Amino acid sequence: MNQITRNQANSTPLTPLTFLDRAATVYGNSISIIYNSTSFTWFQTHKRCLQLASSLSSLGIVKGDVVSVLSPNTPAMYELQFSVPMSGAILNNLSFRLDYKTLSALLIHSESKLIFVDILSLSLALNALSLFPKNTPSPKLVLIMDETLLPDQIPSLPKNINIMNTYDYESLVAKGDPNFKWIRPDTEWDPITLNYTSGTTSSPKGVVHCHRATFIVSLDSLIDWSVPVQPVFLWTLQMFHSNGWSYPWGMAAVGGTNICTRRTDAPSIYNLIESHGVTHMCAAPVVLNMLSNFNKNEQLKKPVHVLTGGSSPPAAILIRAENLGFEVSHGYGMTEVIGVIVSCAWKREWDRFPATGKARMKARQGVRRVGVTEVDVVGPTGESVKHDGITAGEIVVKGACVMLGYLKDENATLQCMKKNGWFYTGDVAVMHEDGYLEIKDRLKDVIISGGENMSSVEVEGVLYMHPAVKEAAVVARPDDFWGETPCAFVSLKDELNENDIPTDMEIKKFCREELPHFMTPKTIVIMKELPKTSTGKVKKHVLRKVAKEMGSTSLPPSQPPSHRLISRI
Amino acid sequence: MNQITRNQANSTPLTPLTFLDRAATVYGNSISIIYNSTSFTWFQTHKRCLQLASSLSSLGIVKGDVVSVLSPNTPAMYELQFSVPMSGAILNNLSFRLDYKTLSALLIHSESKLIFVDILSLSLALNALSLFPKNTPSPKLVLIMDETLLPDQIPSLPKNINIMNTYDYESLVAKGDPNFKWIRPDTEWDPITLNYTSGTTSSPKGVVHCHRATFIVSLDSLIDWSVPVQPVFLWTLQMFHSNGWSYPWGMAAVGGTNICTRRTDAPSIYNLIESHGVTHMCAAPVVLNMLSNFNKNEQLKKPVHVLTGGSSPPAAILIRAENLGFEVSHGYGMTEVIGVIVSCAWKREWDRFPATGKARMKARQGVRRVGVTEVDVVGPTGESVKHDGITAGEIVVKGACVMLGYLKDENATLQCMKKNGWFYTGDVAVMHEDGYLEIKDRLKDVIISGGENMSSVEVEGVLYMHPAVKEAAVVARPDDFWGETPCAFVSLKDELNENDIPTDMEIKKFCREELPHFMTPKTIVIMKELPKTSTGKVKKHVLRKVAKEMGSTSLPPSQPPSHRLISRI
Repeated sequence: MNQITRNQANSTPLTPLTFLDRAATVYGNSISIIYNSTSFTWFQTHKRCLQLASSLSSLGIVKGDVVSVLSPNTPAMYELQFSVPMSGAILNNLSFRLDYKTLSALLIHSESKLIFVDILSLSLALNALSLFPKNTPSPKLVLIMDETLLPDQIPSLPKNINIMNTYDYESLVAKGDPNFKWIRPDTEWDPITLNYTSGTTSSPKGVVHCHRATFIVSLDSLIDWSVPVQPVFLWTLQMFHSNGWSYPWGMAAVGGTNICTRRTDAPSIYNLIESHGVTHMCAAPVVLNMLSNFNKNEQLKKPVHVLTGGSSPPAAILIRAENLGFEVSHGYGMTEVIGVIVSCAWKREWDRFPATGKARMKARQGVRRVGVTEVDVVGPTGESVKHDGITAGEIVVKGACVMLGYLKDENATLQCMKKNGWFYTGDVAVMHEDGYLEIKDRLKDVIISGGENMSSVEVEGVLYMHPAVKEAAVVARPDDFWGETPCAFVSLKDELNENDIPTDMEIKKFCREELPHFMTPKTIVIMKELPKTSTGKVKKHVLRKVAKEMGSTSLPPSQPPSHRLISRI
Repeated sequence: MNQITRNQANSTPLTPLTFLDRAATVYGNSISIIYNSTSFTWFQTHKRCLQLASSLSSLGIVKGDVVSVLSPNTPAMYELQFSVPMSGAILNNLSFRLDYKTLSALLIHSESKLIFVDILSLSLALNALSLFPKNTPSPKLVLIMDETLLPDQIPSLPKNINIMNTYDYESLVAKGDPNFKWIRPDTEWDPITLNYTSGTTSSPKGVVHCHRATFIVSLDSLIDWSVPVQPVFLWTLQMFHSNGWSYPWGMAAVGGTNICTRRTDAPSIYNLIESHGVTHMCAAPVVLNMLSNFNKNEQLKKPVHVLTGGSSPPAAILIRAENLGFEVSHGYGMTEVIGVIVSCAWKREWDRFPATGKARMKARQGVRRVGVTEVDVVGPTGESVKHDGITAGEIVVKGACVMLGYLKDENATLQCMKKNGWFYTGDVAVMHEDGYLEIKDRLKDVIISGGENMSSVEVEGVLYMHPAVKEAAVVARPDDFWGETPCAFVSLKDELNENDIPTDMEIKKFCREELPHFMTPKTIVIMKELPKTSTGKVKKHVLRKVAKEMGSTSLPPSQPPSHRLISRI
């Protein structure tokens, strides 16, 4: 048997890009994308992606170049999930909610050759580019206009735009070759995406995934959620979040209709669900909360499958949402594994449970999806924890979903890729008797506000920059609207003049100038001394308790929230 | 980006065996298998498979050994699809319809270390083993009893059974270790299965597949058919046919219930559908024909999804079956790609067509499934044929589904694995304008009778052994019941005595002694001279025309057919 080995025909690299060619054949006349008054067929989407990929090649983009994208969920954003890697480039979806300093740092770190920018993020991008040091080559910019915006929504082009280095998205599409032979990867281990995550430490880390991983996760994400052919998928989850949990590619595999939108407030979502017959959507618990608070009585005309993640959906929210006709599935994952890889697969015997019992079961993160090789919860020496629902350990993963590593950060890569062959997630969970895992505690330093991850260390770093601050510790404060908000405990320097003693409002203002809005502490508590251990470490668990006892600042949402309310993944 | 490469955590070999561990966790209390009055849960199936795998190890089976199985679709047969590879061995599913000489040759060729034998195939197996040359080591035999058989159905153990070398299936399960750590493949390219196919030439070829291929095809087969979690799957397709088109593993991935049965006649199938609420089944067109002829009026209580393949379902059958409530999908494949890899993905615009138009569309083989990299129809120099529905070419494939190769047959492997990187299927098709392929002609030499492939060359070889036969040519004769039957044209030697001139019945009887029943020509035409080309080759297309004009010998089925009526794949 040993003489039989792999061959050329069965070694073609696995890549989700092949889904698009097929979608054009099978679903050519079906609708691929709907956005306001615009729509495309799969035939058109395929053609437009090939044309743009061809134009990227003409602009000099070659295999392995990084191409960045700064856009909400527009048709262009969807197309770029294919066209950028079809040009051979590595797709770097960036959050348009970043502050311009961070954005600048990421563009430099990734050595982006090109950046696609939605018209409403143009100022942000230009500010970021303006910070580039003189000897650092600046990426070319492709501006994505939006004809569906009202005239007063469109900003005038800023003065500091460099016309020589700027292109127009639709012009690039128009002049591309629809018969372009897209650039296939040399091997399935070639990188396809780069995603920055703040993760659990303060410096942003660039997660690199390969074609194989995105292929496997795309298929797995369809099977695990029982997604049939030709679903209608509403893009409430931002595609820049962990590549939209692989569903941009998955929708091409099943010929779905992508409902794109900039607006993720409750009336807009309900309106899109009703007008397009949405069957599937991904949404953080905070969005589910918003939806069920906005509409307390009127049932959906037909059920909508919702995949939620990022944090456990509280029982009350689950019950309300399901009463309205949302069929909620719950999953767990992270950028390092392309979205959801553990999900709370439903057991038939739970059907008998009362609503609260069902909700309690559904709030557990669950079990690995079928495409994942192994998931376990382990103690400090790598041994599986007891399946008792009490003993905590770290979630570890083996499987094709695991990233290649962090870009230019071998240390961070080695830290999570252990010598025993497991990827260490940094998330802490217990294992229940039935083999379902449940996250009892996020890694201490992470705060999740409105579905966005942030590192408390990073916020603390800014606080420490304030001339009057001696010590700072940031923890999560529970919030009925945002889930959590950052709450800062600070002690001030001893030798301050009375005029130099800041108020909590002044410290907040200081942070706001240095941090994105969602990372700015909503609460500042000035203490004489922070509680410390005998070895001098701040007792964060004590502060967490204090913050918890403060309760929520926000009221539960009854108004449309901002577009920030998207899952952390 | 170049410093980032694959690592231990993301390089774990893809294998469908991981589905079973997960099924035990997620679907532990759900029914995995129903067979007559017996049933198992996924917890039990998982445990039994581990126990048997452990016993195989105890018997000395090691990684890379071939273990053969000779059984219809019983619970043991289902379990063996997991437990054999979980012991590290290569699973060789064999047809229990083979004649004992062929079976013997295959057991020797595969160097089987062990053979699992269903009680009703015991004589066949013992006869095959009795042909082993003295110096060839004989495989150990594991007998699978069946407590659900009636006493008069169970043959008494034959005298020539070697008790020393024989084991009992249930005893091996019972004494195995339920905590056995199953043997994972070293790489995903390690072989997992061996399947013999008569294919298009006369010598049986052993198709070897790897863990990666079976993993990818399993997922692909679920997505393409939109199989949801926890379907109820009726095993009408024999699992030995191309590993049941990957659905034994697929059912573990989605926690389905496997309805096992020995009986695939129409009343039995209808009875199982109604009593167990079957949602999915695979069936050759001839089975569909049988089902729709048996029950012309009574609609199914709920729709049953049928995946058909092996040959195109004729329009009349499709329309009748769908009127009864069968939702028919049509696919194409072969053992070399583990079942179905091209399928006639439905287009919404076809919904508008009249019934005959729909049936014509559905009879096309279609497009590659999403997990397959590329499928094309090419001319002699490897160029794609025109998409005109007229120009014929050979179907070629690239993708993880393609076999590693033929066991101990480098020539045959090289013949279909071309240097241009494609696997050549040997099947001839046209490509329609919309990119859907349609098989216009099977490769000339193949006859498909009752869903079984046979090589005309092999039948001719037997005819040539008859002392009176000068020349022989076997072609397909259309048959309303079997699809096709072998029809032999022979010319006799010139110098025969009158007493030595055989009748057609005598030639038939001669063939019957040398060939399995389904391969025995149903028609023998004695001619003075076979029609030949100027270079002396028999003009088979002329004979095909003659055979076609003879029409069918059988009437369309209204009676339960035998268990042979299963798809060719």
